[in-house]
Amino acid sequence: MTGSVPLHLSTTCLKPIIEMKQFISTADVPSVPRLVDIALNYKKDPFRDKELGKNKTVGMIFLNPSLRTRLSTQVAAKNLGMEAIVFNIDKEGWALEMNDGAIMNGNTTEHVKEAAAVMGQYFDILAIRTFPGLKNKEEDYTEKYINQFIKYAGVPVVSLESATLHPLQSLTDVITIKENWPHARKPKVVLTWAPHVKALPQAVPNSFAQWMNAWGETDFVITHPEGYELDEKFSGNAHIEYDQDKALQDADFVYVKNWSSYKDYGKITCTDPSWMFTNEKLALTNSAKVMHCLPVRRNVVIADEVLDGPNAIVIPEAGNRVWAAQAVLSEILKG
Amino acid sequence: MTGSVPLHLSTTCLKPIIEMKQFISTADVPSVPRLVDIALNYKKDPFRDKELGKNKTVGMIFLNPSLRTRLSTQVAAKNLGMEAIVFNIDKEGWALEMNDGAIMNGNTTEHVKEAAAVMGQYFDILAIRTFPGLKNKEEDYTEKYINQFIKYAGVPVVSLESATLHPLQSLTDVITIKENWPHARKPKVVLTWAPHVKALPQAVPNSFAQWMNAWGETDFVITHPEGYELDEKFSGNAHIEYDQDKALQDADFVYVKNWSSYKDYGKITCTDPSWMFTNEKLALTNSAKVMHCLPVRRNVVIADEVLDGPNAIVIPEAGNRVWAAQAVLSEILKG
Amino acid sequence: MTGSVPLHLSTTCLKPIIEMKQFISTADVPSVPRLVDIALNYKKDPFRDKELGKNKTVGMIFLNPSLRTRLSTQVAAKNLGMEAIVFNIDKEGWALEMNDGAIMNGNTTEHVKEAAAVMGQYFDILAIRTFPGLKNKEEDYTEKYINQFIKYAGVPVVSLESATLHPLQSLTDVITIKENWPHARKPKVVLTWAPHVKALPQAVPNSFAQWMNAWGETDFVITHPEGYELDEKFSGNAHIEYDQDKALQDADFVYVKNWSSYKDYGKITCTDPSWMFTNEKLALTNSAKVMHCLPVRRNVVIADEVLDGPNAIVIPEAGNRVWAAQAVLSEILKG
Repeated sequence: MTGSVPLHLSTTCLKPIIEMKQFISTADVPSVPRLVDIALNYKKDPFRDKELGKNKTVGMIFLNPSLRTRLSTQVAAKNLGMEAIVFNIDKEGWALEMNDGAIMNGNTTEHVKEAAAVMGQYFDILAIRTFPGLKNKEEDYTEKYINQFIKYAGVPVVSLESATLHPLQSLTDVITIKENWPHARKPKVVLTWAPHVKALPQAVPNSFAQWMNAWGETDFVITHPEGYELDEKFSGNAHIEYDQDKALQDADFVYVKNWSSYKDYGKITCTDPSWMFTNEKLALTNSAKVMHCLPVRRNVVIADEVLDGPNAIVIPEAGNRVWAAQAVLSEILKG
Repeated sequence: MTGSVPLHLSTTCLKPIIEMKQFISTADVPSVPRLVDIALNYKKDPFRDKELGKNKTVGMIFLNPSLRTRLSTQVAAKNLGMEAIVFNIDKEGWALEMNDGAIMNGNTTEHVKEAAAVMGQYFDILAIRTFPGLKNKEEDYTEKYINQFIKYAGVPVVSLESATLHPLQSLTDVITIKENWPHARKPKVVLTWAPHVKALPQAVPNSFAQWMNAWGETDFVITHPEGYELDEKFSGNAHIEYDQDKALQDADFVYVKNWSSYKDYGKITCTDPSWMFTNEKLALTNSAKVMHCLPVRRNVVIADEVLDGPNAIVIPEAGNRVWAAQAVLSEILKG
Repeated sequence: MTGSVPLHLSTTCLKPIIEMKQFISTADVPSVPRLVDIALNYKKDPFRDKELGKNKTVGMIFLNPSLRTRLSTQVAAKNLGMEAIVFNIDKEGWALEMNDGAIMNGNTTEHVKEAAAVMGQYFDILAIRTFPGLKNKEEDYTEKYINQFIKYAGVPVVSLESATLHPLQSLTDVITIKENWPHARKPKVVLTWAPHVKALPQAVPNSFAQWMNAWGETDFVITHPEGYELDEKFSGNAHIEYDQDKALQDADFVYVKNWSSYKDYGKITCTDPSWMFTNEKLALTNSAKVMHCLPVRRNVVIADEVLDGPNAIVIPEAGNRVWAAQAVLSEILKG
């Protein structure tokens, strides 16, 4: 793979030419293939850099719930000898004010200017999860919340999923595709929309598209009902195909995911159950590996028969979250 | 004690003949006396096996609140050099789907098939607390919830209390009786029901009975109002005596505990305050040591005069939770 | 500074003549200047005593929310090689009964007699946060809650803020003043009341006054509207000046803080916005450094122009919370 590094090299020997100073999107990553190789090296030998994080602490701040991201990042930090301190600020703390100049006589108790700066005093890295409101497209797509943290923290910030992107998930997905593709030709990867009962963020599909484009090692197709087009800033030159069956033809990997509309912002404009991913859909592919970021609503997004069948790789995919987080933390520590 | 091991032997030297692969009930324990000895060795020297848990992590998943179980298991893990990661999935995560084949268009966000399998990717041991609903006897007594975790986790599962059993508490209770009984003859141990304002699970009394029977080193009597008979699967050959005063006669240990009816499932069918354990009741015994798993409602279950008096051993009993958890984690790590 | 210790001495060499057995108020501190020096030594070299806390655990019990206190104490414990276990008993556990002799047939699940004693079995140090109810002055000012923990824990107790005092904050404040005052003369320190939308405890101003008095290295003035006098037990001989402008004259440090009335207990008797701290007020001072314990309601308590200006030291002040906590934990560990 172009730009990658032989797997037998110790990651500690790999001095970054351009340092990774934060981890919010692909724009922060000097080389996607290199970061993937670092992650795969950790998968082979999780404790190789146990001294790297000595006396270092990552604060993990959650404004929204998390299972995989929280647990995998905690494990990754421990593998590096770092402390990880989890703080569910929404439940254990209080409401933060995000607006500059606010007269704080309402429900918010602390301004992000103080909260972020104080946490920057305590931690070497600040990792944060903050979801979109899905009501104000501009507020969400300017990444107002995480940008306030970046502005005031004074230490490197790692996204644990922000309003529009989920880079630790997408790095994991690249890792998972790479280790499941031993062939010389580029795999065909299809991102397909699927139904859901709730209006979900576009963060995972935006991010997956951004990373597929940045990686450049796949033939990338996106399929969804009309009206579900992603922000072109992220989908880029991906081929968009409204006919799901046509899109799935000869796919080597299918990434299934629901999202709410970007155009009709935050709305559910399609509930057509025929978009659910089933064995019938799988039969159209090149016996594709089936991926999903989880949690997945069974028999709404993906049918049991697929998730319980031999093509689903959602569990090892989730397992790879550890190596993605470990690669990111280690690169920032080395920076 | 038959089957026990000299206390001066290092526990690390004690290679289990039959490995302990999980810890859900006495059926998982090759030798109760041996496990008790391992625990008492840790009590003497908590850090003797500090290297055993190096680079190992136990995930502690709570679907219900906990004080002693959570804190003592965290301390036990640290004593072994392990990381313990706590996750209150009910508060920090989301509702899990437990039913196979469910169409997940309701309130559950993730199926246990994924949740358990993913956590099995992150942890070396998965410890979990899940209470009964007390509405559907069959669902509770087939241990549907914890069995789903065991089925899908792919790593050893430790019960932090399940629908019908609380084995870490019961192992603690055996340890506590053993260290408080220096005599040659078998002690008389009485498990007595007491009143409570809420319908509580049968897990603690079921489990206590199961462990007393498996240990076999006591004369074991159960006393409760008619209608409060425990599942015979657990009470076994214990002598059941409906007259509390008669049961308490010559008791060396009294284990006080409320539970809701098993027969009239999950119901409170007796509120008679004369079942509360008082000094008057204590006077019937052989100056018995008084035990309770805690939390205890004072002056409802046990009178202040008993809990504040010299016969109560509930605090050191709770302290022993650390050594029970440490013995269990160490045996599974060695397995 | 009188009574201080040369900064080049290792803190581990400083054997306390009188040991610190708990940390609730200045009464527990053998020497304030010495404790400040220990903290500043840790600021220079955070990991100098990494072995001191080996195999030791501090339990951090929260009955109320916390950001700075929780995170800084966790970091301090890690710096000393200790484990810190956080337990939000209000959210993760259950309601505690604080009244002796209570018949517990209501909403409380466990008596503090058991809860404190059990936690004392698991931890080497018990740190606890418990706020006042602001309804019953006597109950709050006898420190009923934390005193019950002290009475039953059986291990040293550290206050993470109690009903009437916040000693870790005040020690931090002394440290912050000391490191920002290189001059020979005593600085003038003014504690000024400011408006707020909620009735807040008197713990921070009480405690700040107590520590200023115990330290004795400042000219200390308190200013507030009439009716907001603090308990004289804490304000002591401080000069009280009802005219804020007059009080601020020539101030070297201004500590801004709201509190509810002590006289008309727990009530808000003044909402006058002219008490908000602004650049106009700052202009009256000797270009004073501006302090606040945080969280602060911007443009209600202190104006943006001050907090965003060069005189505010609230962020490094919050950063110093780590060294205060580390000094306290280390002294108790050495005790």
